[in-house]
Amino acid sequence: MDYERPQFFRVMQYADAAAGDVIDMVSGNPDWEPPGALREGLVEYADGDPEQFQYPASEGLLELREEIAARRNVDREQVLVTNGAGEANHLAMAEGLTRDAGDEVILTDPVYPYYAGRTNLLGGRARYVAVDDDGRLDPDAVRDAASDDTALIVVNSPNNPTGAVYPEATIRELVDVAETYDALLVSDEVYDHFDYGDAFTSALAVDSDRRVVTNAFSKSLAITGFRVGYAIVPDWLVDRFRTRHMLTNVTSSRPAQYAVWRALRETPPDYFAENRAMLRSRVEVFTDALDAAGAEYTTPEGGFYVMARFPGFSGTMENVERLIDEAGVAGMPGAAFGESRADWFRFALVTPRAEEAAQRLAEYFSDE
Amino acid sequence: MDYERPQFFRVMQYADAAAGDVIDMVSGNPDWEPPGALREGLVEYADGDPEQFQYPASEGLLELREEIAARRNVDREQVLVTNGAGEANHLAMAEGLTRDAGDEVILTDPVYPYYAGRTNLLGGRARYVAVDDDGRLDPDAVRDAASDDTALIVVNSPNNPTGAVYPEATIRELVDVAETYDALLVSDEVYDHFDYGDAFTSALAVDSDRRVVTNAFSKSLAITGFRVGYAIVPDWLVDRFRTRHMLTNVTSSRPAQYAVWRALRETPPDYFAENRAMLRSRVEVFTDALDAAGAEYTTPEGGFYVMARFPGFSGTMENVERLIDEAGVAGMPGAAFGESRADWFRFALVTPRAEEAAQRLAEYFSDE
Repeated sequence: MDYERPQFFRVMQYADAAAGDVIDMVSGNPDWEPPGALREGLVEYADGDPEQFQYPASEGLLELREEIAARRNVDREQVLVTNGAGEANHLAMAEGLTRDAGDEVILTDPVYPYYAGRTNLLGGRARYVAVDDDGRLDPDAVRDAASDDTALIVVNSPNNPTGAVYPEATIRELVDVAETYDALLVSDEVYDHFDYGDAFTSALAVDSDRRVVTNAFSKSLAITGFRVGYAIVPDWLVDRFRTRHMLTNVTSSRPAQYAVWRALRETPPDYFAENRAMLRSRVEVFTDALDAAGAEYTTPEGGFYVMARFPGFSGTMENVERLIDEAGVAGMPGAAFGESRADWFRFALVTPRAEEAAQRLAEYFSDE
Repeated sequence: MDYERPQFFRVMQYADAAAGDVIDMVSGNPDWEPPGALREGLVEYADGDPEQFQYPASEGLLELREEIAARRNVDREQVLVTNGAGEANHLAMAEGLTRDAGDEVILTDPVYPYYAGRTNLLGGRARYVAVDDDGRLDPDAVRDAASDDTALIVVNSPNNPTGAVYPEATIRELVDVAETYDALLVSDEVYDHFDYGDAFTSALAVDSDRRVVTNAFSKSLAITGFRVGYAIVPDWLVDRFRTRHMLTNVTSSRPAQYAVWRALRETPPDYFAENRAMLRSRVEVFTDALDAAGAEYTTPEGGFYVMARFPGFSGTMENVERLIDEAGVAGMPGAAFGESRADWFRFALVTPRAEEAAQRLAEYFSDE
């Protein structure tokens, strides 16, 4: 399968060209305010000495790594600051596939398309394990799929696109499968601040030298364009990750790192709690409207996407275009995330017009 | 051979721990002011709408790509904004090595160590072509070294570490060799603003679908920490580069891209001319002192490094440490750049104390 962006672009282009008013529920860009301290950090940085405009340490600004290490309760040496979670995942997958421990990559279906795209790019073979309609991943199915050829198991919780949050038992089992087959478990936790049921468990909770945790501030600080993420890496992989990071990017952008550090130090917990509450209320309004529209869906336990399917109206690109033209709502076709969700749509709730979109969908499908 | 940073760190650590005052001529970090418009651009960006904090287009901010395309006189579609020249070189080398057109990488000796490191990381085989003592690269020697196994020819002009600027005839020949053997010529031109004899020719001057030009604003705008660079790519490689960039980094950091765009639009030519003149005068003072010290060296035609060797005092790590302790000047050991320069030192002239360092070296070697 292909990676997300071209599909994403196709939908966005179609929506932009549409005659009427269209509510964008396509992209995963937060629509709310970044923390004030982040803006202040950038302004302060802009006034610094020329020395502060030069290369930071390749592994990231020391103070930022220390802040991350303290928050995640890990050793600072295990923290590598990356160009977003994207680079962190790239490094982890490249390492997993170049250590002569197999070339198979276990992914879920549906999948965040960049994982599939990276698997192709890096010469791995994707093996998909379908989740159930509620997005639950059965670790026994992963164990059945795994073998000595398994290089990587890549998971994402809270999940894009399903909204599932994997329970601790699942995470433990996944780590165990990785250990059994000398694979790396890559646990992408970029939506960890958007956990609505307190069910989220980081893979850090399971001590293992076969798990890499990736994350970023893109969603939690509403700055997908800043590209500040990180990997937390077992000791034996630290040097390999640093070398690959250095030879890929030299280092990550310093103004963005500095601003994130300031934001982490000074942003009160309320900032995160309020955004989480806002999204939770969007989820409620949106899923109420889906009920009114007669749709099938799973209430997301985390993240900010809702997958839904409508009776007699499958999630094809053609129907995505119809929804844009006739309902004024742009979502993503489910097939962009894998075969198992070809009937579904994905809606991103990162728009202040989520409620309006919900009303439009409810009206559109009740009129049909 | 290994990549630069660990050597660099070893020297820096030694210099930091030294008892006396040490002048740092190790790193390639500009010590002068970035343009005022760059600082203003960051401040302006910090005050933007939340939307401006989100993903820019993966290939870079449109206005920045347009500005680069206009300056380089290329089609905008050929411009990909990257996380510094580092990522641009990484993408080019990764593409060259995955297109089943050989696995040999022709590099110069001495070499910028990241090229060698990337060759190792990406599974290529480095083949070194020695330059002469003045840093001149003989294109016939490159032709002799090339074969159907040649995937890449990677050059850097103005050159780090030799200071050589390759004449147009050399660039033309290198492109021709790349075409003959279906290889990619990667021309890293990051020091193009520091050309003291107007001899610099960009590989863009030679129309070919086998050359990739890489560059960055790290040196010209004195912002090595911002990580804004670019690749100019022949049409048939554009999609491949974009895909690899997207799956490696998603996109480059937006605040840095915006600030660079503002700086490019508003910085007068004087800014670049004054910095070039300042460096040229540092070169003069420094090479005068090398004469006084009885050293052998080549006056750099471009860039901001000088390689020198002193009679009876070869460029070993041990002697680097002696220079730190006894002369108060920290340079890099020549062996960090390849076997052919094991007798030499590299001094970076990016310190306001370049003249003082020159005096120290002249005194140290005249006392010996």
